Amino acid sequence: MKYGFAKRVNHMQSSAVRDILKVVNKGDVISFAGGLPDEKLFPVQEVRKAFDQALLSNPKVLQYGETEGVPALREQLTVRMKVKGIYRDPEHVLVTSGSQQAIDLFARVMFNPGDIILTENPTYLAALQVFQSYEVNIVPVDSDEDGMVQGDLEEKIQRLKPKCIYVVPTYSNPGGKVWSLERRKQLLKLAKKYHTIIFEDDPYGDIQFDQSENIPPLASMDDNKYVVYTSTFSKTVVPALRTGWIAGPYQIIRMMAQAKQATDLHTNSLSQHALIHLMREFDLDGHIRTLRQAYKERMLVMKGIFDKGEDLPIQYTEPKGGMFFWVSMPESVNTTALLNEAVENGVAFVPGAPFYVNTPAQNTLRLNFTNAEPEEIETGMKRLVEVMNQSSVSM
Amino acid sequence: MKYGFAKRVNHMQSSAVRDILKVVNKGDVISFAGGLPDEKLFPVQEVRKAFDQALLSNPKVLQYGETEGVPALREQLTVRMKVKGIYRDPEHVLVTSGSQQAIDLFARVMFNPGDIILTENPTYLAALQVFQSYEVNIVPVDSDEDGMVQGDLEEKIQRLKPKCIYVVPTYSNPGGKVWSLERRKQLLKLAKKYHTIIFEDDPYGDIQFDQSENIPPLASMDDNKYVVYTSTFSKTVVPALRTGWIAGPYQIIRMMAQAKQATDLHTNSLSQHALIHLMREFDLDGHIRTLRQAYKERMLVMKGIFDKGEDLPIQYTEPKGGMFFWVSMPESVNTTALLNEAVENGVAFVPGAPFYVNTPAQNTLRLNFTNAEPEEIETGMKRLVEVMNQSSVSM
Repeated sequence: MKYGFAKRVNHMQSSAVRDILKVVNKGDVISFAGGLPDEKLFPVQEVRKAFDQALLSNPKVLQYGETEGVPALREQLTVRMKVKGIYRDPEHVLVTSGSQQAIDLFARVMFNPGDIILTENPTYLAALQVFQSYEVNIVPVDSDEDGMVQGDLEEKIQRLKPKCIYVVPTYSNPGGKVWSLERRKQLLKLAKKYHTIIFEDDPYGDIQFDQSENIPPLASMDDNKYVVYTSTFSKTVVPALRTGWIAGPYQIIRMMAQAKQATDLHTNSLSQHALIHLMREFDLDGHIRTLRQAYKERMLVMKGIFDKGEDLPIQYTEPKGGMFFWVSMPESVNTTALLNEAVENGVAFVPGAPFYVNTPAQNTLRLNFTNAEPEEIETGMKRLVEVMNQSSVSM
Repeated sequence: MKYGFAKRVNHMQSSAVRDILKVVNKGDVISFAGGLPDEKLFPVQEVRKAFDQALLSNPKVLQYGETEGVPALREQLTVRMKVKGIYRDPEHVLVTSGSQQAIDLFARVMFNPGDIILTENPTYLAALQVFQSYEVNIVPVDSDEDGMVQGDLEEKIQRLKPKCIYVVPTYSNPGGKVWSLERRKQLLKLAKKYHTIIFEDDPYGDIQFDQSENIPPLASMDDNKYVVYTSTFSKTVVPALRTGWIAGPYQIIRMMAQAKQATDLHTNSLSQHALIHLMREFDLDGHIRTLRQAYKERMLVMKGIFDKGEDLPIQYTEPKGGMFFWVSMPESVNTTALLNEAVENGVAFVPGAPFYVNTPAQNTLRLNFTNAEPEEIETGMKRLVEVMNQSSVSM
């Protein structure tokens, strides 16, 4: 039987990243493809203790819960955000099933078909997928190392009157870059001038390699009017709990909570209660410092091997945090084709193309450095360098 | 600042049930309003053990997982469905964040604005909310005690060419009724004749009071072509884990998995792994038998008090399973007004109006009998009967 699907499915596509993951999970391939944290660094015993405490506390932790999230968790989230200079009340916070759901619910309550959304380019693939499923027009803004370029940004805001500007300003996925303070201020100024909402997606902000660097989130410079801010426990605690949050103006948060009620009633509340215990009794900040150190070391191993390959036909900027290396190869190289050769040689990456809004740079690729241990990174990178060198020979 | 929301938010409304829940959670009100199972009957120690086993097994249970769900859980779900006569392969199953998400994802991939959806009337409130948010036209079909009336159903299918027929055929919410075998067969015959998809929502099927009664799910009579079937662990294990599933034709399940990827990546996988352990080592069917007995006893306490009130101005049918009593009062009574009096008298219910597609029967109400213990039910029902009697006096 042929089924008549909704028109919006024409705008949906399976994530290239996830499809590749399925392939590389088999055999002896060292994968730099996914965006996975390292499960060997998970605080398993502490998570176990936290679940045990939650389950011993009261059977009500297993009952239906409030759509907005468990009140004590929302309270604790405001405390964590305060440390970053983001002052919000618990009623400005909605707990979501991962920050991916925050993006989806925001799109759901804000976007009409045909609305304009401004983004960086390349940008977070799965945000593009959400936006496309709501049939909006995504328009990329010129960006450089420091963030969106002011001139192009203002011109596009003026001319296109976007519904929203979506940014991952701190250790972006896939670019690994961080916006300068000046560009942050400029963006906020323009948002205020033209009454445009900024969606600040901040899953990686805690994975900061230079601890003396002070990069205030956009939300910390806003009076809870123009910035909605989302983050997650997926990178700093564990991904499996699918617990993220979004903070923003009350009207928007309330509307998103209504949408969430129809979508999944509420986020897994046992996990929320366990996170409350974990945040109270576990040195989460100490754990985050451990992660920063481990991931920085791995990034340096990756960088080291690139730097040793003297004639290697690549360009990159050293990531200051996060989980990704973004690499450009000569324009004649198509990294999607290169991936096949790489997988045959026992290493995987993600081609850069799907991260682009429109015409992709086919010569780019993304490498994740958090999921493999240093020795594996060395082995995998040697395999990759070999494939990269061959690609330049065959040009 | 005024925010420009999407047009679809005009079709969203907060659930009356949840708004009332917020009020009655305070003070000495005995609530028959929610649709909550009894947390005192939760298998807390077994859930605790299952989480512990999952967390001791492998740190990968805390890593990102597959959008479709943990393979071993999908496998186990096919085994559970087989007992009900529903033969499906694991690839026909998608694990969802509660069965609420199954309804939402199905609507997302199937419905265009203006599509026609046929439903019973009254029907599950939160399904109506989902459908409305996709801007479809919901058309009720005449129903009696045994299910949708064949003549009206066929006329509407022929004339309106609905995209889908949504039904809760077994111990429905709010009606508490169960479709006869004949009506089930008729519905399937029409679905096949007119190539129409049936969405069978079955959260309550396991809560069956007469264990000799054999009520096959619609999905068991279908060759995986016309019926998508959803159920959940929320009523039989615990709601907090937000784990449900949907089984249906591969094309639809695959498309829903793509939509789910953009929505929340995947359902909490630690909970999925814990459920795998729970289903393997815990006598879930024994536990379900305990629930059936306890809930039946409570239903009978409720019924007993209604039956004692000789001149009580109400009509109802004894529920054969599920969690709800559906009550009609004289047409002059408005149960929304009555609720205020009831809450003042220390008891709460849900007015029936929001469960209706169009013109509501304002004289109806829904009572939940699973969340309060027998003695509480007695006390609460006495308070309710008092208010009901006064309402008939003041007419």
